[in-house]
Amino acid sequence: MKNAKKHVALVCPGGPITRNLADKIVEITADHCGTDLQLHFHNQCFEIAGHFAGTDAMRSDAFLQVANDPKYDAVWFARGGYGACRLDDAVFDKLNESAHQKTYLGYSDTGFLLARLYGQKTGLAVHGPMPTDQPRDGGDVAIKRSLDFLTRRNTDVVESSIRSGAQYAAFNITVLSHLVSAPWMPDLSGHVVMLEDVAEYLYGIDRSMFTIMSSPSLQTVAGIKLGRVSDVPKNDREFGQSEEEIIQYWCARAGVPYLGRADIGHDSDNKVVPFGPCS
Amino acid sequence: MKNAKKHVALVCPGGPITRNLADKIVEITADHCGTDLQLHFHNQCFEIAGHFAGTDAMRSDAFLQVANDPKYDAVWFARGGYGACRLDDAVFDKLNESAHQKTYLGYSDTGFLLARLYGQKTGLAVHGPMPTDQPRDGGDVAIKRSLDFLTRRNTDVVESSIRSGAQYAAFNITVLSHLVSAPWMPDLSGHVVMLEDVAEYLYGIDRSMFTIMSSPSLQTVAGIKLGRVSDVPKNDREFGQSEEEIIQYWCARAGVPYLGRADIGHDSDNKVVPFGPCS
Repeated sequence: MKNAKKHVALVCPGGPITRNLADKIVEITADHCGTDLQLHFHNQCFEIAGHFAGTDAMRSDAFLQVANDPKYDAVWFARGGYGACRLDDAVFDKLNESAHQKTYLGYSDTGFLLARLYGQKTGLAVHGPMPTDQPRDGGDVAIKRSLDFLTRRNTDVVESSIRSGAQYAAFNITVLSHLVSAPWMPDLSGHVVMLEDVAEYLYGIDRSMFTIMSSPSLQTVAGIKLGRVSDVPKNDREFGQSEEEIIQYWCARAGVPYLGRADIGHDSDNKVVPFGPCS
Repeated sequence: MKNAKKHVALVCPGGPITRNLADKIVEITADHCGTDLQLHFHNQCFEIAGHFAGTDAMRSDAFLQVANDPKYDAVWFARGGYGACRLDDAVFDKLNESAHQKTYLGYSDTGFLLARLYGQKTGLAVHGPMPTDQPRDGGDVAIKRSLDFLTRRNTDVVESSIRSGAQYAAFNITVLSHLVSAPWMPDLSGHVVMLEDVAEYLYGIDRSMFTIMSSPSLQTVAGIKLGRVSDVPKNDREFGQSEEEIIQYWCARAGVPYLGRADIGHDSDNKVVPFGPCS
């Protein structure tokens, strides 16, 4: 059964994607995976309701439907874009045995879902590239990285510092700073936590790091690794510290080890980070 | 002693101000208060270290010095601008009896300090206009509002819905979302919490409200009132809800009463909100 064709469902918990992008991803998948993997884009991906890919109810229903459907091996979030934190809380009580067997792959705003699923031990939460990364330079390579993980759990697409015997999690800095106070915040004690961000002012990164590192739930982690912080807008006043100095500063204040750089970020080099112990 | 001259010290826990602004504020104060109130700008207000009005140590020392000095009746934060959350944690254990007698007035980023002082029952924390509001249209009126409160605790400058028998607090939405996970987050049970913000995308306001209302510490408040949310940048996709609809949505999800609008904001109409019970 190990080599049976994998079926992967795609939904958008935040913003929508276009049908053109979906077609492009299907094409790359056929080229790269042949008959080993088949994608199933839920129609919800193409809905539009204000900022979101359909109403909260539509996005909640689509996620619950694909998570609970035994026909799918994995749920691949097609896009981040704000909105995952608005899914109905009731969804997370309704996840069935099939939902517990699945892999859930995404990053950025979908970190709200990865955190919650990881916290309630539902399936395997995985940080990694999403279809919406395809238009980037080298985007096809990023897409193939997630496809390789979804098809065969290839370890060569996994962030290179990950070792057996340790536990990991990866988050967008802004997203993590917004979920540390939630009652379902996962226990990250003993984890190496990898962080990245995009398009935030350095003072915003600093403020988010205050929030993250002043939260009791982060003070027992094994350490912090910093991915890329890209497309930082220019402020009218230079912040005066680099992104790495900011992370080092807040780690030092919290007495948490800073463990150097991680190979993740909002770019086509973004590597795969399965949450939990490296297997 | 009630009519004795009041001495008010000014420090900048975040960004710096100019000497020109300080001179202008001294002039308005002399015109408006005569000999009833004298301002003392700490030199730290004019320091520059990257984004901040001096290093963390300088800002921490200046705040501790004026808070502990019995010669001052109040500490007026001269400006917000990010940085108050970086003050040394040790400062808050060193506040003396004199610090406990003082009024602390500011808003926006200085909400980090108001929250912490209120949480540890040190003095009277007050949301209200700061010197940096003077250049706004009608800014002189805003400055006089804080001066009136600092001189005589005039109740006519206080937000008009405030009633005796209830407890209050006021915060910038983004700032509150960044401090709810701190170990020193004050107990706001039973409080009416007034919120305002400026220059944030509506999706950012929505995300902050998720954080605020999913925090256990906000779920026992008496209710939320919404001040002004101004200078909202235009997003490439309309959010689809107004700022009031966003607050109503998250209040409803948390089962917390939404109590209508409050007369606070990043503008010259910003009213004074003393934290705690209305006296």
